[in-house]
This record gives sequence, C-alpha cells and structure tokens, in this order.
Amino acid sequence: MSLTVVGTVAFDAIETPYGKTDKIIGGAGTHVALSASYFNKDINLISIVGDDFPQDYLDLLKKHSIDIDGIQIKKGEKTFFWKGRYHKDMNVRDTLATELNSLENFDPVVPDKYQNTDYLMLGNLTPLVQRQVIERMEKRPKLIVMDTMNFWMDIMLDELKKTISMVDVISINEEEAQQLSGKNTLVKAAKVIHAMGPKYIIIKKGAHGALLFGEGKVFSAPALPLEYAFDPTGAGDTFAGGFIGYLAKTNDISFDNMKNAVIAGSVMASFNVEKFGTERIVELTEEEINERILNFVDLTVFSLRKI
Amino acid sequence: MSLTVVGTVAFDAIETPYGKTDKIIGGAGTHVALSASYFNKDINLISIVGDDFPQDYLDLLKKHSIDIDGIQIKKGEKTFFWKGRYHKDMNVRDTLATELNSLENFDPVVPDKYQNTDYLMLGNLTPLVQRQVIERMEKRPKLIVMDTMNFWMDIMLDELKKTISMVDVISINEEEAQQLSGKNTLVKAAKVIHAMGPKYIIIKKGAHGALLFGEGKVFSAPALPLEYAFDPTGAGDTFAGGFIGYLAKTNDISFDNMKNAVIAGSVMASFNVEKFGTERIVELTEEEINERILNFVDLTVFSLRKI
Repeated sequence: MSLTVVGTVAFDAIETPYGKTDKIIGGAGTHVALSASYFNKDINLISIVGDDFPQDYLDLLKKHSIDIDGIQIKKGEKTFFWKGRYHKDMNVRDTLATELNSLENFDPVVPDKYQNTDYLMLGNLTPLVQRQVIERMEKRPKLIVMDTMNFWMDIMLDELKKTISMVDVISINEEEAQQLSGKNTLVKAAKVIHAMGPKYIIIKKGAHGALLFGEGKVFSAPALPLEYAFDPTGAGDTFAGGFIGYLAKTNDISFDNMKNAVIAGSVMASFNVEKFGTERIVELTEEEINERILNFVDLTVFSLRKI
Repeated sequence: MSLTVVGTVAFDAIETPYGKTDKIIGGAGTHVALSASYFNKDINLISIVGDDFPQDYLDLLKKHSIDIDGIQIKKGEKTFFWKGRYHKDMNVRDTLATELNSLENFDPVVPDKYQNTDYLMLGNLTPLVQRQVIERMEKRPKLIVMDTMNFWMDIMLDELKKTISMVDVISINEEEAQQLSGKNTLVKAAKVIHAMGPKYIIIKKGAHGALLFGEGKVFSAPALPLEYAFDPTGAGDTFAGGFIGYLAKTNDISFDNMKNAVIAGSVMASFNVEKFGTERIVELTEEEINERILNFVDLTVFSLRKI
C-alpha cells in the first residue's frame, strides 16, 4: 500500500566514542523512508532541503524506490544541519550545533499524487508541520503514526497535544512518555497518552526494547543485545520506518500484526546502530533482515505454558 | 528432584510510597524457598535465626513443604534484621538499619539428609558461607546457582570471585554485572563474568526484565508491565526461586529449558511486588501462576518469521 513519510532530510555530523563523521545524510525523514523501503516499494517523502544538498543523496533515496517529488529544494538556502557528540554511555549526547536553515519556514506541500495515501508517517518535526500534512490530505489515511520528542514538549506542548489528538499511533521514548504523561510507570503513562487520542502507544526503551500498548493489551519487544552500539543516531526513526513499512506492506492494522511491525522496527533499529548514520541501512539485503528476524525469534521464544 | 537453598531467614521492616510494615518475615532464603515451593516439593533450607524468630514463621515455611532442619536456631541471639525505605522511583532505596545478629557468625551446617541434593541455590549471602555450603556437600550437585550483590563486590571481591568460580549459573542485576565486569554493555559484561567460571549468566533488569546468556546464546525475558510495584523487596530472590524451582521440577538443564525457568522466575517476581514482603507469594494458587504464564506468552509472542 502507499506510504507517505514527512520528516527532516538533513546533514548530520556525528561523534561517538568509536569515531566521527563530517556532514553526512541524516534526518528523521531519511531514516524512516530508507528503513521502510525494505518492506514497501510505494513510498513518498515530504521534506525540505537547501540547494546545497547533494544530488548523490537525492539519488540514494530514489534508488530505494522513494518518491522525492515531495522534497522542496530551496534556492539560496541551506539544508538543516545537526551536529552531536555521544558519550561513552550512548544514552547521553550533547548537541554541538543545530542550524535550522531551510527548515525554519517549512510549509509542507502534499503533491497530488500523494493524495489518497494509505499510510502516513509523521517523523519527528515541529508538531505544526505534522498537523499541516494531515490537514492537507484530502482523505484521511487508513493509519497515521507520529514520532515526536521532548524538545516539542518543552517549547510547544499545546501544539503538540493538538497533533497527538489526530493520530492513531504515537511512538516516543521512555523518558518522553513520562514527561508527556506526568506518570512514572509506563503502564500509567500509556493510559494518560491514550486518553490524549492515540489508540496505540509505542514506548521505545533503547537497549531495553519497546512496548506496544493498545486495545487493553501490551506487547514487549526486546532489543537485540549488542557488544556495542557504534552510532545510535536515527535508531528511533529507523524503528518507526520498519514499523510503518511493515504495516504498509501487509496492510493489516490488527494488534497482532502490530506486534510483528514492532519486531520489524526493532530489527531495523538493530542494524542502524552498527555503522554511522544511514551507512548500514542503505546496504541491507533481504537475507540479512530475515536472518535477524530469526535472531529475535531465538531471543524471545520459550515453550512454557503451565507449571 | 531435591533442591537445597541457602540464604538468610530474617526480619524485614519496609516502607514504600504505598505503606509500611513492622517486622515481617523476610530474607533471601525465605523468598527463594517459598517461590520454589510452587514448582518442587523436595526443598531444604539452610539458614540461621535467633530464638526471637516466631514459630508461626517457621510453620509457614513447613506448610510450603520446606524442610527447615537446616535452619539453626541460636539461643540467646537475635535474628538478622533489615529495615529499608523505597523512594517514589522504586529502583532507589535507603537502608535504614542492618542488624546482622545471629548471621554474624553463621557457620552453615548441611544435615545428612541434604547430602546428595540435585540442585543447590546459593541465595545472596556472604560469599564465604556460600562456598562453605558447596564444600560441605559430599557430592557436587548437578547444578549450582548463586545470587549475589554489589555489597560483596565492595568489601570482599576476591572471596566473591572464588565462589563465583565454583558455580554453574550466576544471577545478578544490571548495575552489578557492570561493576563486577568493568564493562558497560551487558553482552561484554556477560563475557567477562563467563570467563570467571559460570557457564550461564542471568542479568536482572528490574522493570525491563532479564537476560540469560550461555552456550553462545542469549534469551530476553520481559517483566510484566505493572501500574505500580507495591514493594520490590525480595523480587530478585523470588525470581531466583522460580528459576531454580522450575529446573528442579523438570530436571532439564538445557539452554532451552533454562529459558522456561527464566520465565517461571519472572512470573513469580511479578507476583512478589504486588504486596509487602512474602505476603503475595505465600497465598498463590497453581491457577494464578498458570494464568500469569499465559500473560507472558501474550506479552512476547509474534508470528513474524520473514519479510
């Protein structure tokens, strides 16, 4: 089924304990779309870049069957740039630079051919832009998923809540779920966020996996235990891409199939952290993905049913 | 199969954000043995108390088919006492009092009838006593499992390492695994601890579940997501009791069956936190346990096998 993604397409410069990069392709929209491309071949990307964004990077997206006609290229402007440094504890990072550039006045355009999209993924972005994309769709997509972060909770909580009220699934991390809900346990946090609108809540716990809440049920996906994460940048976006990509591929939004989608997301995130930025998720094969799915099966399957 | 447990039998006084207790029955040995009693009926308990320890509490253990002839009752001495207060974040607790009392000169005795035990569980205790129990067994048990904590790493690391080198399975929590190994990721930590002797390493992650490492494989068990934990005291011991109790019952120490045992432990720990101390795990029924096992199945099972 058709999938439309909105999110940043950007330059990232990353420093981790294992190395550093100059400006490379990054952004939530990039990670989501690339990750989803392994599941679904009908993907549209809505974003904005400056005219400094290399044609090679645009070609990379096209090579992954991503329609980029929804990416506005702003003449005379520069592309959004983020620079960050991770500590030895990869859960902690310093933002060294954030240059909004062309992103500052992003007025998203939904090309006609993106209308009637079945699945809509709102990557992490200002909640106003996320909402504008929903409003500019002539027909409400079958499923709308959003990702967000604490930054928007801090500076525009009311805007954010308005957007949250319009989506079916929200994906946020553990601390953000606690901040958004004011609750310390994740079960309580999910209840409060559920009351804000979304039918399903995904809480990402990094190295501890992810929880899916909905329909009064809960599913727990592990993360693959790793010797080290080379670079966690974009892991959450890559997770979201695997999640929505799998749902768009299978066109089944039952809770049981969402469990599979959470595993698909977890599988993709486990690859993402193996190299810098998108380096790992642009080179994957179907065989590698299937092998890793079986790793997740081994990691979780037990036969106990009663004592 | 026969199971021998060594561990403290004690008084606990607990304060949590939900209430407080006066002195109630506690101790690692108590939690381990009570939890294991739902799986295996041939359980021996090696411990020590003072003559202030109520007959009612001893009868409670006997009622759960636990042989208490290995509990020394020291005339004129008092029972080990621990008093603690949990914060709103239940991962943080203050120890308000620790009175070793009769535990201070604990010289463990292995009754003749406990010889030839098949399974040995060394509950959290001074590593010297744990080792003495191993050495006082005429025949090495089929499987020796130990639980320990950071306290012993801080004050007698060499003693602890000596005991660790003699066991098959070690169960410790996440921060303790990092402290013991000097490694920050759990995969690396498990490798280092494996090199110290144990073939299998269980890393307990509280609300994030537990990981089992061994034979080059890894298994991830979730914790049951809970609205709140009423009292986490003894959750790790109760986990260990479910783990060893299930293994003793099934007498199968393959990695695949250890996965089941980790789930059995997780199930028992999920009950333990619902009330103060041992209050919940003394009143369980087989039906409740089987129902909760199915909760863990729902929580983890997905059908995805390839994309």
